Amino acid sequence: MSDPAQTPSRRSLFQMIGTVAGSAAMYHAMTVLGHAAESPFNGPIKLSAPPPGTSVLVLGAGIAGMVAAMELRDAGYRVQVLEYNNRPGGRNWSLYGGDVYTELGGATQTVRFDPGQYINPGPWRIPYHHQGILHYVNRLNVALEPFTQVNYNAYVHSTKMFGGKPVRYREVQADFHGHVAELLAKCTRQNALDQTLSKEDRELLLTALKDWGALDANYEYGKNLISAERRGYDIDPGGGLDPEPAPSEPRAMSDMLRSGLWAAIGAGHSYDMQSSIFQPKGGMGQIGKAFGKALEPLIQYNAKVIDIHQDAGGVTVAYVDSRSGGERRTATADWCVCTIPASILSQIPMNVGGPMRAAIDHLPYMASLKVGLQFKRRFWEEDECIYGGHTYTNQSNRVIGYPMWDYFSKGKGVLLGAYTFGREAFIAAARSPEQRIEDALECGARIHPQYRAEYECGVAVAWHRVPWALGCAGEWSDEGREQHYNNLCALDGRIILAGEHASRLAAWQEGSVTSALDAVERLHKRVMNA
Amino acid sequence: MSDPAQTPSRRSLFQMIGTVAGSAAMYHAMTVLGHAAESPFNGPIKLSAPPPGTSVLVLGAGIAGMVAAMELRDAGYRVQVLEYNNRPGGRNWSLYGGDVYTELGGATQTVRFDPGQYINPGPWRIPYHHQGILHYVNRLNVALEPFTQVNYNAYVHSTKMFGGKPVRYREVQADFHGHVAELLAKCTRQNALDQTLSKEDRELLLTALKDWGALDANYEYGKNLISAERRGYDIDPGGGLDPEPAPSEPRAMSDMLRSGLWAAIGAGHSYDMQSSIFQPKGGMGQIGKAFGKALEPLIQYNAKVIDIHQDAGGVTVAYVDSRSGGERRTATADWCVCTIPASILSQIPMNVGGPMRAAIDHLPYMASLKVGLQFKRRFWEEDECIYGGHTYTNQSNRVIGYPMWDYFSKGKGVLLGAYTFGREAFIAAARSPEQRIEDALECGARIHPQYRAEYECGVAVAWHRVPWALGCAGEWSDEGREQHYNNLCALDGRIILAGEHASRLAAWQEGSVTSALDAVERLHKRVMNA
Repeated sequence: MSDPAQTPSRRSLFQMIGTVAGSAAMYHAMTVLGHAAESPFNGPIKLSAPPPGTSVLVLGAGIAGMVAAMELRDAGYRVQVLEYNNRPGGRNWSLYGGDVYTELGGATQTVRFDPGQYINPGPWRIPYHHQGILHYVNRLNVALEPFTQVNYNAYVHSTKMFGGKPVRYREVQADFHGHVAELLAKCTRQNALDQTLSKEDRELLLTALKDWGALDANYEYGKNLISAERRGYDIDPGGGLDPEPAPSEPRAMSDMLRSGLWAAIGAGHSYDMQSSIFQPKGGMGQIGKAFGKALEPLIQYNAKVIDIHQDAGGVTVAYVDSRSGGERRTATADWCVCTIPASILSQIPMNVGGPMRAAIDHLPYMASLKVGLQFKRRFWEEDECIYGGHTYTNQSNRVIGYPMWDYFSKGKGVLLGAYTFGREAFIAAARSPEQRIEDALECGARIHPQYRAEYECGVAVAWHRVPWALGCAGEWSDEGREQHYNNLCALDGRIILAGEHASRLAAWQEGSVTSALDAVERLHKRVMNA
Repeated sequence: MSDPAQTPSRRSLFQMIGTVAGSAAMYHAMTVLGHAAESPFNGPIKLSAPPPGTSVLVLGAGIAGMVAAMELRDAGYRVQVLEYNNRPGGRNWSLYGGDVYTELGGATQTVRFDPGQYINPGPWRIPYHHQGILHYVNRLNVALEPFTQVNYNAYVHSTKMFGGKPVRYREVQADFHGHVAELLAKCTRQNALDQTLSKEDRELLLTALKDWGALDANYEYGKNLISAERRGYDIDPGGGLDPEPAPSEPRAMSDMLRSGLWAAIGAGHSYDMQSSIFQPKGGMGQIGKAFGKALEPLIQYNAKVIDIHQDAGGVTVAYVDSRSGGERRTATADWCVCTIPASILSQIPMNVGGPMRAAIDHLPYMASLKVGLQFKRRFWEEDECIYGGHTYTNQSNRVIGYPMWDYFSKGKGVLLGAYTFGREAFIAAARSPEQRIEDALECGARIHPQYRAEYECGVAVAWHRVPWALGCAGEWSDEGREQHYNNLCALDGRIILAGEHASRLAAWQEGSVTSALDAVERLHKRVMNA
């Protein structure tokens, strides 16, 4: 996207294409790298009974740790879980009013959201094909509701095009499709495809392009009631003797291309964003809470692991109180499933072999920022008819996510005011929470002028400052995965790793689940063959 | 679509393109004809107080009639509503277990659905821009939940292609987009667009096509992890040492074009189907029920209008009991808002002028069929990971609609087993309800083999046999609208018509609402100027 051979003006255009799409382009890039895909989950696992008294120590009560703990417990293992935080879930986490969060560097935020309002700093959606996490969601009776990935009435926005005014998603998609269809129809009719498609196929193609692209009888995409039925009207059809409907004016293809706004169209097409897609009612953190309740006697909270040692007899883990430090304690077991993020684990002494250690030390972690903003009223619904979904912008906040629950309610609402990865997220991590919020307000106000008058309070989580994660997810490169991935996942003596970082679904809870299931299955096989 | 100049084999292909899309193509055709668009509703109306004692008789307690009655009542009019059925709502209607429905011809169906199960024989979705009906939904405190228009994991199916096996929607869309992008990229690189786009725009177009169409570095759409992130995998990425992901094989463009399956892609793009889109919790009929409750003392049920007469002094309407006939009664008022469908009204004596009479007599009504099928379990969710949305088929049932509520529940479920217009709907109307259900089962079983084993009971509503509607909605042609529409809507003495047929949003509740608001505003103006 930033080929140095490009002239400066060209380069900036290309960069803009890359940036304006916000998470859409980011996710597309992620998926090309092998992230984010369908689960190989094939229904619940059933382990046979282990030798009586066989014990497993699980490190981390995030999704991976709790899946491992639940399956091992169910099989008959003696299980103990050590968790750094004072709550279950890990990155499965929702922030509600009254919650207090202290980040690395000491900045403490007390969330002042009203009851019923929340933000998910970590994962916030579950696609239909993530059948592993969906299995546990249903087993734990966590209620789901639909997540709205694509909202045709939300905006795509560039400060550099169309006077800096936001454009409705439906206009961007309709115009891009329409112009692509018109261009291909023109080529087809000018015989450019005669060597590629048969005459019959060319005629079918013209029929298809006309229908799909909303072209007129001359295979042109223009201002008429055909395109209006995709991009909207200047005067909408009504009842009785209301004024007659009038179509709206499509934007020129050249402007569409130069705006980069087209990059937002892919957001709902990629495998992990396709409908149907769900969220837990009341926040993603409801899953972690339900897991924690189901495993209650097994989990020891506020336990900061400081040493992991294995020998012929078992595994000994040393830990201290994560709040107060103090006395060094130990826990022991025959085996260990360690789900501590590699970013943290690389700093903990653990006597594993060189290949696993190299893999742990290798893996970089993605930066990410989420900002939640509470407003006095749901002006995006009341004033702009935006019910859920996302607005994409080329500004540093990248995304505005509208709450996908309590639609049409008259009360307050919390927006996701920023959702960024990479460069913007690193910059945000270097700023104070207050500054991150102010940045999100400044960007958002250029899209929604109601922002300043309606804003009440906010919270900002920069994942590189989350003390127990130091990043939002493992960021595998193709080369890194080739060299280290299998070594990271291999059973090393009595220790096996699990988590999204030990999966090909990085940053997704499904990666945590499938990783944990694969880990306990291999561990169990080892136990039974011991 | 059925050009007689085509050879038979070509013609059948084109017909298939037209039919396989089911309601998608139908709705696209409808929208081109001027149906189905955004509401001009601009917030609640506020009528001034009329002269004390001014009375209005509203005929029909469907959405239009109840909107008119509510606004007139609120302004201070004396309002009486006559309704043929024993319930409010009209075509706003949900069928629940225990409901009894007798169609024209005498066939009676007693619905045997379990508690909580239902089908909406009439309207079933409300797009974000139908702000008129949404206003009343919110005023009446009817809860809404998201409707899923597009489900990437539902099917598109043709008995004539791909071995008659259903294809996932995501594969159809990804392959169509991918091939379109590849073809246009090829034309662009072979200079076919040199006269149309600047060099800079051509390069931007290539970048856009590659991203949007999931093309590889050579601008080709092929079997690789890029296309897999749109159409899905042969082996899905997993956790730990699960097998490595493997991409799936795209279908050839020629097969895609000949299959006609691409016609389903437009379903979610058209203005009235775009997300966000909603449904009332518990069935569309909840709106009618809430309206009825709010207007309770004003509505007289079981009143079959048999004569409408106006003179200098007012309007007199004669009616009988719609169940038993018997005694002729009359109701009188100063003015009349008549929302009786034109299909029925054309058979009722009413002394209006020639232009309105000609308009009423002119308007044909669309045929439509909906079949609801209850199954013992939600096999589409449990076995096939289909949560809501629609499957499109070239069979006579056209559409299977999956319930968009109670996702992941372990109980029973009701599918929309058929949803047809036009020819298929007329044929269905000529068959018994049992035969319609059997037809839907036969078609559905070719897509979901679980049908026969899991089926419990069903109900089939063919709208041309609904005694109080004789069709699902007014079917305006461009010519008919040109000649008759204004005459239908004009105030004729003391009588004004309202309903979806008196709107440019035919078949939508928003047409009923905007028509009713326009009618009462014009009527009120006439009253105040009298």
